[in-house]
Amino acid sequence: MGRSALKEFMIGKPFPTSMDVHERLDKVRALAVFASDPISSNAYATEAIMSVLVILGSQALRLTLPIGLAVAGLVLLVVFSYIQTILHYPHGGGSYMVAKDNLGRYPSLVAAAALLTDYILTVSVSVSAGVRAVTSAFPELFEYRVLMAIVAILLLTWVNLRGARESGTIFAIPTYAFVGGVWLVILIGLARYFGWFGAPPLPVLDEVIAPTASLVGFAYVWLLLRAFAGGCTALTGIEAISDGVMAFKPPESKNAAKTMVAMGFLAMSLFVGITFLSSQIHMVPHEYESILSQLTRQITGGNLLYFWVQVFTALILFLAANTAYQDFPRLSYFLAHDNFMPRWMENRGDRLVYSSGIGVLALLASLMVLIFQANEIAMLPLYALGVMLSFSISQSGMFQLMGRIAHLKPGETLHTMVTEIHYEHNAKFKRVINAVGATVTSIVFIILASTKFLEGAWIVLVIIPLLIYMFHSIHQHYERVSKALSIQGLKANDLSEVADVAIVPIADIHRGTLRALMYARRLSRDVRALCVITSPEMKERLERRWKRFPRITRRIKLVTVDYDYRDVLTPIISYIEQVNTVEFPDKLTTVVVPEFVPTYRIGRILHNQSANRLRDELHHYKDIVIIDVPIHIDSKI
Amino acid sequence: MGRSALKEFMIGKPFPTSMDVHERLDKVRALAVFASDPISSNAYATEAIMSVLVILGSQALRLTLPIGLAVAGLVLLVVFSYIQTILHYPHGGGSYMVAKDNLGRYPSLVAAAALLTDYILTVSVSVSAGVRAVTSAFPELFEYRVLMAIVAILLLTWVNLRGARESGTIFAIPTYAFVGGVWLVILIGLARYFGWFGAPPLPVLDEVIAPTASLVGFAYVWLLLRAFAGGCTALTGIEAISDGVMAFKPPESKNAAKTMVAMGFLAMSLFVGITFLSSQIHMVPHEYESILSQLTRQITGGNLLYFWVQVFTALILFLAANTAYQDFPRLSYFLAHDNFMPRWMENRGDRLVYSSGIGVLALLASLMVLIFQANEIAMLPLYALGVMLSFSISQSGMFQLMGRIAHLKPGETLHTMVTEIHYEHNAKFKRVINAVGATVTSIVFIILASTKFLEGAWIVLVIIPLLIYMFHSIHQHYERVSKALSIQGLKANDLSEVADVAIVPIADIHRGTLRALMYARRLSRDVRALCVITSPEMKERLERRWKRFPRITRRIKLVTVDYDYRDVLTPIISYIEQVNTVEFPDKLTTVVVPEFVPTYRIGRILHNQSANRLRDELHHYKDIVIIDVPIHIDSKI
Repeated sequence: MGRSALKEFMIGKPFPTSMDVHERLDKVRALAVFASDPISSNAYATEAIMSVLVILGSQALRLTLPIGLAVAGLVLLVVFSYIQTILHYPHGGGSYMVAKDNLGRYPSLVAAAALLTDYILTVSVSVSAGVRAVTSAFPELFEYRVLMAIVAILLLTWVNLRGARESGTIFAIPTYAFVGGVWLVILIGLARYFGWFGAPPLPVLDEVIAPTASLVGFAYVWLLLRAFAGGCTALTGIEAISDGVMAFKPPESKNAAKTMVAMGFLAMSLFVGITFLSSQIHMVPHEYESILSQLTRQITGGNLLYFWVQVFTALILFLAANTAYQDFPRLSYFLAHDNFMPRWMENRGDRLVYSSGIGVLALLASLMVLIFQANEIAMLPLYALGVMLSFSISQSGMFQLMGRIAHLKPGETLHTMVTEIHYEHNAKFKRVINAVGATVTSIVFIILASTKFLEGAWIVLVIIPLLIYMFHSIHQHYERVSKALSIQGLKANDLSEVADVAIVPIADIHRGTLRALMYARRLSRDVRALCVITSPEMKERLERRWKRFPRITRRIKLVTVDYDYRDVLTPIISYIEQVNTVEFPDKLTTVVVPEFVPTYRIGRILHNQSANRLRDELHHYKDIVIIDVPIHIDSKI
Repeated sequence: MGRSALKEFMIGKPFPTSMDVHERLDKVRALAVFASDPISSNAYATEAIMSVLVILGSQALRLTLPIGLAVAGLVLLVVFSYIQTILHYPHGGGSYMVAKDNLGRYPSLVAAAALLTDYILTVSVSVSAGVRAVTSAFPELFEYRVLMAIVAILLLTWVNLRGARESGTIFAIPTYAFVGGVWLVILIGLARYFGWFGAPPLPVLDEVIAPTASLVGFAYVWLLLRAFAGGCTALTGIEAISDGVMAFKPPESKNAAKTMVAMGFLAMSLFVGITFLSSQIHMVPHEYESILSQLTRQITGGNLLYFWVQVFTALILFLAANTAYQDFPRLSYFLAHDNFMPRWMENRGDRLVYSSGIGVLALLASLMVLIFQANEIAMLPLYALGVMLSFSISQSGMFQLMGRIAHLKPGETLHTMVTEIHYEHNAKFKRVINAVGATVTSIVFIILASTKFLEGAWIVLVIIPLLIYMFHSIHQHYERVSKALSIQGLKANDLSEVADVAIVPIADIHRGTLRALMYARRLSRDVRALCVITSPEMKERLERRWKRFPRITRRIKLVTVDYDYRDVLTPIISYIEQVNTVEFPDKLTTVVVPEFVPTYRIGRILHNQSANRLRDELHHYKDIVIIDVPIHIDSKI
């Protein structure tokens, strides 16, 4: 099986470019692809609040519900803002596009850097959490957790390289199974709690945990803030849809907005339901069992439904990682398109996905898993920070945009840099919501950054500026390149002339070098065969063989250089350099390299790589044209 | 510091080729370089005999002396044979050359394969044993033993890359210090044993170890054979001088022969002395302390001399590894010269040493150290086997040669393949000794192979045929190449004609592609700019820009190919292939590639490597000439 056959077997048949529009996601599949990240956070978000509050004792756990509702309120604000983004930016781009269009280059790069780091963490955190779910059930697998996480990343990479449609189908089942299962648990729980349909009442737990600290004043508020910050993990992944409007079937932005609403509803119904029931039956967080597992067991009594929820919790955590496989390559595409990332991240692979972005993400996420040894607890302080930063920037951007819309008259249309805007009669109201959203998310960002700074958040705060510096440097590079290649005002005479000379470095006279000399004779009247002589026998042999082919060598000058060292490329290059700079300054000098090519790659190791090394060295000279004249050997080794 | 400056700092200033003869070894340095291997085996050879005999109880240890003398007799035979080799083959080559000259290709390749495996093992075994000497003293270093062994190999590699003179100087001191120290110990021991100079008598130990087995008949003989096989580790490294006659100062073969005699004398005086004294004072082998260490302590009472011997035992074990750094590259050179190894192993580096051979040896020995985790005990069964095989072959070869010499008349001279021989009046006597030597070493080889087969000797017996197959394949490859390049009977008309066509693949019109088109116009009247169109906008843009440079594009045909996939190289290559095979069969087709070259290497990752990939693909076609027309961008990234 050849290389391309193997590729086709793994990835599938290449899709033609024109097939693009058919490869998009319908709403049901899109919801599964984009929502697994925010939905999966229900596996730990409520618990993240409670595990902070419990420091004040089990009494303080009653604060879980108000804090949970505050988080849910924040989610509502963010969802609202992103629906606006989707409707105003139908070509997608999320925070990055919004910031670029309304706030300028650097805020947009901050948003992009923040999101990229978070996408990488989404993969490493979710995969590690999923592996933990498995190793909790099978502790004997614990020592293989890093390997399992890497294998999971490879599987996700493979599925995504095959293309979006299929990944949508693969991911739909576990996402909906998880949502359905937890909904049923919540419904039964509510029924039992309120005594609907004569359901047996829910037992209220009476476990009491004494406070480990008694906090007043600022310290008390700080603790509440930390609990709130913990709950904010529920917000990760919400921006994904706005980034990926292009992946929806047309009408893209309408479908995306509807999916956004559905996602917000799904995620928050689960979050509020779990938070409400957990606090009402006085649940207490334990190290050995998650809140979701405890709650499910209390409500269902540990039957098949309990098993169902546990299995799909593990699965949806793996799928959450998949969200980043949609987001990271897409944001990289936007950045590459604007020359802030290498241009090849813009190219799509055989299956119309951004293969390079998928590859880079897989690589970096695997690296994180290796560094943190698949311990997602150690990675959590780095997580959610980027998302919150990009929320603030995006909402600030929407605030700006709404200001511009508010100045429009009915029927008026304005073209911004990337989209067009029309009059809207409630723009001012929306603007207020964006202002509130921007303020709240900025405050949450500061809370997250400060409460988790020493635990690892500082790493992200170092990486983001580095990424921005990288974006900036790459952009500068491409600007220089486009200037250098520019044909603005270029005249044909501006291009370098070609010198009438052809230098042919040879080590011996054989079929290969003769062929190169023949070719050189067609190019120029001044052909010079250049040979470095390292022993008297070599010179004698060369001259003898040279005379055997007068018809070829007649009009060629044989230049020999005596040299007492072994690095024969040095005198060859200095001769060529001299011809190029002294004899024919500012002209193109031609070097004809007789290159020996074994049919089989392995044969190469049996030969000096002189031709390759010479070519590599000569590439550094800007006015040297290199001609490879191959001579092929049919040989098994 | 640039790459070449760094190289010069590490390796030293390059030596001119003409300096070659000055870089040779005098006898004192040569002895140190070549003798450390056989001399260092005194650290374990006596013990290797005793540790087998002790199975029959401490009574059986009295057999150590006769077995040791048998080993010493074998050494004498081998040394005699190699002196003959040196005198008859003054250009060096040892077993390989002797076998090639007298027995034919395959026996010589068997000898070469056997020796190469043994050289690799010399490095890994000696370095590991040296590390064990260090970790015995500092057990807390035990967990770093693999790292220490690799560092030792790197140090040896570095010293050897700097050149032979300096390595001779570095190695002289420890070798002579070890020999001097042990001689002194033996002298004091003999004085005390025989009561010379009124020295206090040596205590005779009375430790009794009961036999763990009682063997009779064949089993008893088998045990004696195993003890003898253990003692044969004393023979490793003896052939080195004959392989390296070229490294001596002139007169090479006389100096080498004298050094051989000195080496045999040094090594055997130590071996016989240690063996004699150990058995006379009823020494018993212990796991926790080597025989040499016990003996030295008994004789000296553990004073400064004891310390001296211990330190230089460790050092000389490291140096023994160095012998292989002389042998392996040199034998590889001979093999490469005869086209049995890659030709680049023939080339000498900046300091006139065979750098490639040194590098390959370092790599393979490090690999062995990694596989066996620096445990030399596990490697020992693989060791000494190759040496014994090459001894047998070499002595058989000398037996043949002496037969030819015996047929010469006085004053007659005969040219063999690689040397010349003269009448010698005692050739028949020498022939008998060679016959005895060949027989004895063959028997010892069979003993070694059979007694150690299951412990690992089988690995060597598998590797040797594989190496021979490799030699054979490489040789065939070079024969095919030389046939293909041959100018035997070649006429100028036999070479392919050049087709009057130049294809220039382009993706856009810019300074770089215009430069390539200009160049192509000089080459041919039929220039074709080839562009793969992936979108209607691209086509429109290309045609618009094409028309802006009529002076350049006037006589050029613009070929556009509509393509609905992203791998644009595929249609480019199939177009070129078609031109090459259909339009101009059997002629050279020229492809001009506009190549974008960023000034700094790192800039390359920001660009599609299309030009490089195209060139790589086109290399597979034998009648396509590739022209790189570079465009340089001065850019920091």
